[in-house]
Amino acid sequence: MDEGEPGVVPAVESTAEDIAEMRTRGAATIADAAAAALATQADRSTAETPAAFRRELRAAARTLYETRPTAVSLPNALRYVLRGMDGDTVADLRASTIARAEAFQRDLAQAQETLGEIGANRLQDGDVVMTHCHSTDALSCIEAALEDGKALEAIVKETRPRKQGHITARQLREWGVPVTLIVDNAARRYLDRTDHVLVGADSIAADGSVINKIGTSGLAVNARERGVPLMVAAQTIKLHPDTMTGHTVEIELRDESEVLTGEERASIVDSESTGGDEGDRSPETDGALTVENPAFDVTPARYVDAIVTERGQFPPESIVTLMRELFGETTDEPWEA
Amino acid sequence: MDEGEPGVVPAVESTAEDIAEMRTRGAATIADAAAAALATQADRSTAETPAAFRRELRAAARTLYETRPTAVSLPNALRYVLRGMDGDTVADLRASTIARAEAFQRDLAQAQETLGEIGANRLQDGDVVMTHCHSTDALSCIEAALEDGKALEAIVKETRPRKQGHITARQLREWGVPVTLIVDNAARRYLDRTDHVLVGADSIAADGSVINKIGTSGLAVNARERGVPLMVAAQTIKLHPDTMTGHTVEIELRDESEVLTGEERASIVDSESTGGDEGDRSPETDGALTVENPAFDVTPARYVDAIVTERGQFPPESIVTLMRELFGETTDEPWEA
Amino acid sequence: MDEGEPGVVPAVESTAEDIAEMRTRGAATIADAAAAALATQADRSTAETPAAFRRELRAAARTLYETRPTAVSLPNALRYVLRGMDGDTVADLRASTIARAEAFQRDLAQAQETLGEIGANRLQDGDVVMTHCHSTDALSCIEAALEDGKALEAIVKETRPRKQGHITARQLREWGVPVTLIVDNAARRYLDRTDHVLVGADSIAADGSVINKIGTSGLAVNARERGVPLMVAAQTIKLHPDTMTGHTVEIELRDESEVLTGEERASIVDSESTGGDEGDRSPETDGALTVENPAFDVTPARYVDAIVTERGQFPPESIVTLMRELFGETTDEPWEA
Amino acid sequence: MDEGEPGVVPAVESTAEDIAEMRTRGAATIADAAAAALATQADRSTAETPAAFRRELRAAARTLYETRPTAVSLPNALRYVLRGMDGDTVADLRASTIARAEAFQRDLAQAQETLGEIGANRLQDGDVVMTHCHSTDALSCIEAALEDGKALEAIVKETRPRKQGHITARQLREWGVPVTLIVDNAARRYLDRTDHVLVGADSIAADGSVINKIGTSGLAVNARERGVPLMVAAQTIKLHPDTMTGHTVEIELRDESEVLTGEERASIVDSESTGGDEGDRSPETDGALTVENPAFDVTPARYVDAIVTERGQFPPESIVTLMRELFGETTDEPWEA
Amino acid sequence: MDEGEPGVVPAVESTAEDIAEMRTRGAATIADAAAAALATQADRSTAETPAAFRRELRAAARTLYETRPTAVSLPNALRYVLRGMDGDTVADLRASTIARAEAFQRDLAQAQETLGEIGANRLQDGDVVMTHCHSTDALSCIEAALEDGKALEAIVKETRPRKQGHITARQLREWGVPVTLIVDNAARRYLDRTDHVLVGADSIAADGSVINKIGTSGLAVNARERGVPLMVAAQTIKLHPDTMTGHTVEIELRDESEVLTGEERASIVDSESTGGDEGDRSPETDGALTVENPAFDVTPARYVDAIVTERGQFPPESIVTLMRELFGETTDEPWEA
Amino acid sequence: MDEGEPGVVPAVESTAEDIAEMRTRGAATIADAAAAALATQADRSTAETPAAFRRELRAAARTLYETRPTAVSLPNALRYVLRGMDGDTVADLRASTIARAEAFQRDLAQAQETLGEIGANRLQDGDVVMTHCHSTDALSCIEAALEDGKALEAIVKETRPRKQGHITARQLREWGVPVTLIVDNAARRYLDRTDHVLVGADSIAADGSVINKIGTSGLAVNARERGVPLMVAAQTIKLHPDTMTGHTVEIELRDESEVLTGEERASIVDSESTGGDEGDRSPETDGALTVENPAFDVTPARYVDAIVTERGQFPPESIVTLMRELFGETTDEPWEA
Repeated sequence: MDEGEPGVVPAVESTAEDIAEMRTRGAATIADAAAAALATQADRSTAETPAAFRRELRAAARTLYETRPTAVSLPNALRYVLRGMDGDTVADLRASTIARAEAFQRDLAQAQETLGEIGANRLQDGDVVMTHCHSTDALSCIEAALEDGKALEAIVKETRPRKQGHITARQLREWGVPVTLIVDNAARRYLDRTDHVLVGADSIAADGSVINKIGTSGLAVNARERGVPLMVAAQTIKLHPDTMTGHTVEIELRDESEVLTGEERASIVDSESTGGDEGDRSPETDGALTVENPAFDVTPARYVDAIVTERGQFPPESIVTLMRELFGETTDEPWEA
Repeated sequence: MDEGEPGVVPAVESTAEDIAEMRTRGAATIADAAAAALATQADRSTAETPAAFRRELRAAARTLYETRPTAVSLPNALRYVLRGMDGDTVADLRASTIARAEAFQRDLAQAQETLGEIGANRLQDGDVVMTHCHSTDALSCIEAALEDGKALEAIVKETRPRKQGHITARQLREWGVPVTLIVDNAARRYLDRTDHVLVGADSIAADGSVINKIGTSGLAVNARERGVPLMVAAQTIKLHPDTMTGHTVEIELRDESEVLTGEERASIVDSESTGGDEGDRSPETDGALTVENPAFDVTPARYVDAIVTERGQFPPESIVTLMRELFGETTDEPWEA
Repeated sequence: MDEGEPGVVPAVESTAEDIAEMRTRGAATIADAAAAALATQADRSTAETPAAFRRELRAAARTLYETRPTAVSLPNALRYVLRGMDGDTVADLRASTIARAEAFQRDLAQAQETLGEIGANRLQDGDVVMTHCHSTDALSCIEAALEDGKALEAIVKETRPRKQGHITARQLREWGVPVTLIVDNAARRYLDRTDHVLVGADSIAADGSVINKIGTSGLAVNARERGVPLMVAAQTIKLHPDTMTGHTVEIELRDESEVLTGEERASIVDSESTGGDEGDRSPETDGALTVENPAFDVTPARYVDAIVTERGQFPPESIVTLMRELFGETTDEPWEA
Repeated sequence: MDEGEPGVVPAVESTAEDIAEMRTRGAATIADAAAAALATQADRSTAETPAAFRRELRAAARTLYETRPTAVSLPNALRYVLRGMDGDTVADLRASTIARAEAFQRDLAQAQETLGEIGANRLQDGDVVMTHCHSTDALSCIEAALEDGKALEAIVKETRPRKQGHITARQLREWGVPVTLIVDNAARRYLDRTDHVLVGADSIAADGSVINKIGTSGLAVNARERGVPLMVAAQTIKLHPDTMTGHTVEIELRDESEVLTGEERASIVDSESTGGDEGDRSPETDGALTVENPAFDVTPARYVDAIVTERGQFPPESIVTLMRELFGETTDEPWEA
Repeated sequence: MDEGEPGVVPAVESTAEDIAEMRTRGAATIADAAAAALATQADRSTAETPAAFRRELRAAARTLYETRPTAVSLPNALRYVLRGMDGDTVADLRASTIARAEAFQRDLAQAQETLGEIGANRLQDGDVVMTHCHSTDALSCIEAALEDGKALEAIVKETRPRKQGHITARQLREWGVPVTLIVDNAARRYLDRTDHVLVGADSIAADGSVINKIGTSGLAVNARERGVPLMVAAQTIKLHPDTMTGHTVEIELRDESEVLTGEERASIVDSESTGGDEGDRSPETDGALTVENPAFDVTPARYVDAIVTERGQFPPESIVTLMRELFGETTDEPWEA
Repeated sequence: MDEGEPGVVPAVESTAEDIAEMRTRGAATIADAAAAALATQADRSTAETPAAFRRELRAAARTLYETRPTAVSLPNALRYVLRGMDGDTVADLRASTIARAEAFQRDLAQAQETLGEIGANRLQDGDVVMTHCHSTDALSCIEAALEDGKALEAIVKETRPRKQGHITARQLREWGVPVTLIVDNAARRYLDRTDHVLVGADSIAADGSVINKIGTSGLAVNARERGVPLMVAAQTIKLHPDTMTGHTVEIELRDESEVLTGEERASIVDSESTGGDEGDRSPETDGALTVENPAFDVTPARYVDAIVTERGQFPPESIVTLMRELFGETTDEPWEA
């Protein structure tokens, strides 16, 4: 990306940089920015032939794509917009691309609210909802239910290591929802008074499995064992088309410092502080201390009761059909060749 | 206990105070102190008739019992010693009581090591063991296996809220065991490379269910789902005779401060810091924030593969037979009436 | 509905009344009547503009819809017919609507037989089928199998509270099928000699769960535990499009008198007849006696092996795809604005 | 039994007749009568030698046993009393037999209350208990809990075919317990608000399986699926020693009339009332209508959480140990040879 | 077929014979031959009217179909080609049919490789794969993974009765994969070191169940119990459209000689060789010895984690949607009337 | 053992040799021989002091024990006999030892028949029994059932690699039982018509798990999934006391030749016979071919419905209680020190 792709306008480069530097974050925000950037490229393109225009658009898409290829909403936005680029003249191509980008942005702006209304239909007045991590898609279901006049209570798992449960707890309190905050270890005990487990998703695979914040799968297994349904709230930009061709979603390993402070590490590995009979143990015979901090885990489809999207709710085993409808069967990326 | 029971010697009162104030802690340490206190009472008793002697001993037991009636090892020690008080003269009663207390202490001193050897037999060279919380009974199995020359690796759950996993990690490292430390949420993901889940117990009920550090039951359900056996290491002083008569073990609710710092609470409940459109929300319409912090949970017998004690290993469903053998059927406490 | 909607012809009002008063009953009968009514409306409409014609048809649909909004086949029929109303002139609109209504009625008349042939293919000569409640869709599968020359036996659950199993038993006997009638409580015992559990459906939700006569879900769980497949026979007019947007199907609570006769109630609540030592108990300290009589329950998709419709057989997790194909994604009702 | 066994006193014959004619009914009542009869036999025996005395007692036991060999409490009572017959003289044999019979009766009189207290310990204030059929052992647990000041609610299954749930409902109401009466088919739906399923037992086998009123096993499977514990209340006279040697408990098939009235049967088999197109069907081609009415079913041990007896609570898998303790390993019946 | 259908060219008859005599074998080979034969028929047809041409093509298809109606790939090929026959003139019909046949053959030639690439994406470097029977579709996944540079190990079940595992073992060794060969009975023991179970399919039903070599279903149940995912590799020519209408796939019973040699049979049924005390047993009272040798079994969809085809991977519950897309809803065969 | 232990009589050495050389085989035969040898040692001992006598007996036991320390019945016989050696004089010690050995042999001779009668009680007239491998304990249950006049059918798994199912098939046929012989892979398919799975055991561990012929555990998992009970027939000499202290039973790996003939191996590893494009592959890049042939596997207690011994039937979870009763808690071997 050093010099940029030929013909790509500066505004696209700038959007790409914002995404790469994580100034632009969040699945929906990234998708929106990418669609806007393609519209800008179309608007400002100086290409004189349809072929050149197409080449430029593809280059712009490639530039954007390469910033964070694992952010599933980014390629989904690019695919959607480029598929709408249609016409025999530069003018037509420009118009159709811009229209398509705007449609995408419009739908996107509406998606979470629609999803929330659909998810809210699953919640009854008086229900107790258990949450894991922090998901605005999941919370939009609760918000819509509250707006429908339903009273809800929440059991909020703190969600180590980063304790995003605190953000959820704060939001729910502000909406007037009584919150019981628990450590993650306490989840099974509180499932006995839970009516729904409600989580978001980082991405959703073609086999209906849900990639979400570490701890989701263990919670899902316990929810099934306790007879509590698990509902996943996820906009369709979270669907992962690559998985239609068998690709598995790579799980990010995050920094040790989220799990262990320097002081804590020292208290574990510093043998000075132990009793005398250990004093002569040489450090090199000590076992290694490794901290592993996977960000996500994979919940098999069979433990998920429903996936709620802005296009309706689906059993996880049917999500592949929605994917094929939205993204087609092929995975030749439109920005390639 | 203001004035103490008549005839109870000061040393017993002092032991009772140490237990009550938690200066004497840990199931085995308390049991040992209680047995020793009864021996001291027997030794120093000035009772002149067998009836008076028995009365004094019962009073001493009662004094000790009332310090922490929920600490299961304490009544177990008292029961064991008083059952051995036998004879027709004060001298005989004194001698038999002291002998019985000493026998109890001797067995107790040996129990963890014996248990460790039995548990070690279940571990194979090269096995990976996942731990939850910190249990010296559980660790004694690993120590014995290491002494048998077996190489082991450990996956150590940090065990929120108090992170006793750090103590386990430190101990294992000192023994040369490579340790992978994970947050509790990551457990299911790491079960795929685990050969045994190994935990201790706070107490064990007649139906074979295991009361242990919060999070054990959720881990147990996932271990079964992943096909990994769960082994519980617990000396027989952890068996809970009351449960033979249907009593359930009460779960202690601990302080919020273990879960949430004051600063964290403020960040959740302080609505000042939120955006303007929430600014006019009056605090009294906010939902309540409750933190619940149960110390233990209950793992049903059907998720436990073996309970390892110093008397051998048992399927959890058979532990009631061992209880009846050790404590008899009746639950009339010997210090009553 | 007091005065009726403007322009709605009397025949439609009359059909609506028959449905409202339950003179017209049964999912297929209602659907057929509704389609016929729309055809009549189209035929007799005096509207002079296409817009007026459309307005009248929508009004007619609304009139019909409001009679029993929870009868799932009614809105399905209305949706289907109105979607076929097409044209630029009143004549074209009239013709297309009538043609569409006739097509719907023709398909409907054929649906049960087609469904029966499909379901019959799952049954083998010599099979034993267990039934719950009375369902003509389910019976059509048995009838078709008998016509194929297969010998079948039936275990018929009586299906409290209304004992519709008696109707099923009578029908099967008339077809020459040996019937073993059992109380509902005996079902698990007889599953050991059952090859298929075969039931109908009141409606089917987008997540593949089956709303059917109370007792179906408990039977389904036991059938899975005993290794017996569960087959649900349901025409596509039973598919519940609202559930695509997360709506749950409301379960009707029926009258106590179906469960308890007045005499039986008296024998429970009349404390006169009890022995003397209860005599002084004042009635007001007695516990309340509530009878709850839900008509249906919900069987989760994971306990259903196949849903047989006139469009083929489906795993329950795929039924949402059929729904989307038949009714589209949107749930904006065509009779609204 | 025409002429009776030699030496058996008339009072024993009379007791035997009462049992045979079901004037003496109920497991505990029968056991009590049988023990009393043996005491009477011992008291009134005119035997002059120990051998003759023993012979007479065995004959009396045989006489009693043969009245209802499948009533498990009867042989248990006989076994217990005869095992206590001890001594070298007729006087000693008489005294020991009478003492043993009295001890048995005393324990028996106390057993239900003790059992109730043990079972009550499992119930918490505010719990909702679901019952099946009518069991005084099960109700004694509720009664004891109420006496402990716990508030309980009950969901009472009517328990077709004989609707013994009505008796349970009446009793619970009199104790002030709010009762929700449901048909058996509704059980799974109500398990979601149930804390305990509580049933009695007709008998309990050595493998821990529970023979109880038809419908218990289907309920047990659903209770496990919904995560609700199942507790069986049964005095030890219900333990079935024959099953230690592999015998299975025979399930009584009861009369059709409990399931189907004559009128109902006629409505099923009378083809006159059906429409014309069936009219020419000759009755001999109709399928047979059989009504099967098993009184009990067998719940496998793995679906039972606890068996509560007057000797304590047990996991079902340990009940064989209690059986061996109470009745010994051999099944040579003391009244034989 | 004696005289052949009118107008069917000799080359088609010859292909039909090769299929009937099993000189042409294997799902893909048969499908390819059938498509080629239809192209030849189109090419060589002497029909002078479009109707005659169509008639001939249908006759050719029928001729081919009747050779092995249970070979699922054969009718699939015929359906696909005939659906592409389009045009108003003989010339157009000829051209379109030939083009369609060629497209089918082209796709088919590519299908296994594409499928392999998709399946390979599910395999990670270092994985251990367990195989059952011999499937080139399954092996193509391994081959593609090896080409991607991943190291794999294989545990190969010998797959009685015909031990096709030996062929798989040979192939894997040639690709450099370390192979551990085991008897089928050892499978559960080796699942503990297995990352994937990978099998092919004989055919796949609309309910997602997989018909494959006998033993697959038992392996699948154990794989789920051990937490090992099961992946089925099958080209779409294996999808069984008849099952959309409830038809079950008939399981071929193969010859006894695959299971038992004559010598082995003799050693079982020849009573001469047994000891003297059996010598007088007359043979006619001996029990019958039957050998049953089913070629396939049915694995329910719920034990299958993914079905990998050349069109992508699918949860088994969604395969019906792919079937409907490929073959349409109707099952009126194009070669009929 | 070169020179033998001092004082051990030649007959004992000879018995030891027969066991070591596997001329004496089979759990019961070995146990019988070992008990007889100790009786002979006691009879022929020339020891002049009780201490010397004891020393000699221990030496004899040690000599026998060391021949096949993993044959569980051998140490069980030695333990039983030595525990009965009692007395203050050589004469008393001799007499008590001989009497104890004879008692052991008497019980042993009777055990299988008693076990058979107990197991037969579980079988009903008309039942279909599936067998795995060949077990005389299992067959004794069938024989006793036949003698009770029950008609049975058998489905016999051939049991690769050694096909001991053929021996079972032969025996059953001679008893007049109709036999259906199947390959192991077909088991799940035939479970649908099976009433009991009946197997023997190589040994049984304290946790109730059953060590038996490879394939038992996979069958057990499928039997549970299909709802068919699994019954294990095993005399108490098969109980493995070492496992009370956590020891796991080592699984014998047997010779490759049982799995693969030389010819079969050659067909797999000989690359000559493959096509040309593999011809240049150098053998050293081929993957290794390992054959693993474990003789036994371990079936977890939770998949076993009953263990039938000559002491009665037990749930597997209670077998530890029987072990403790028979062998005591300690595992200090009586032949040591």
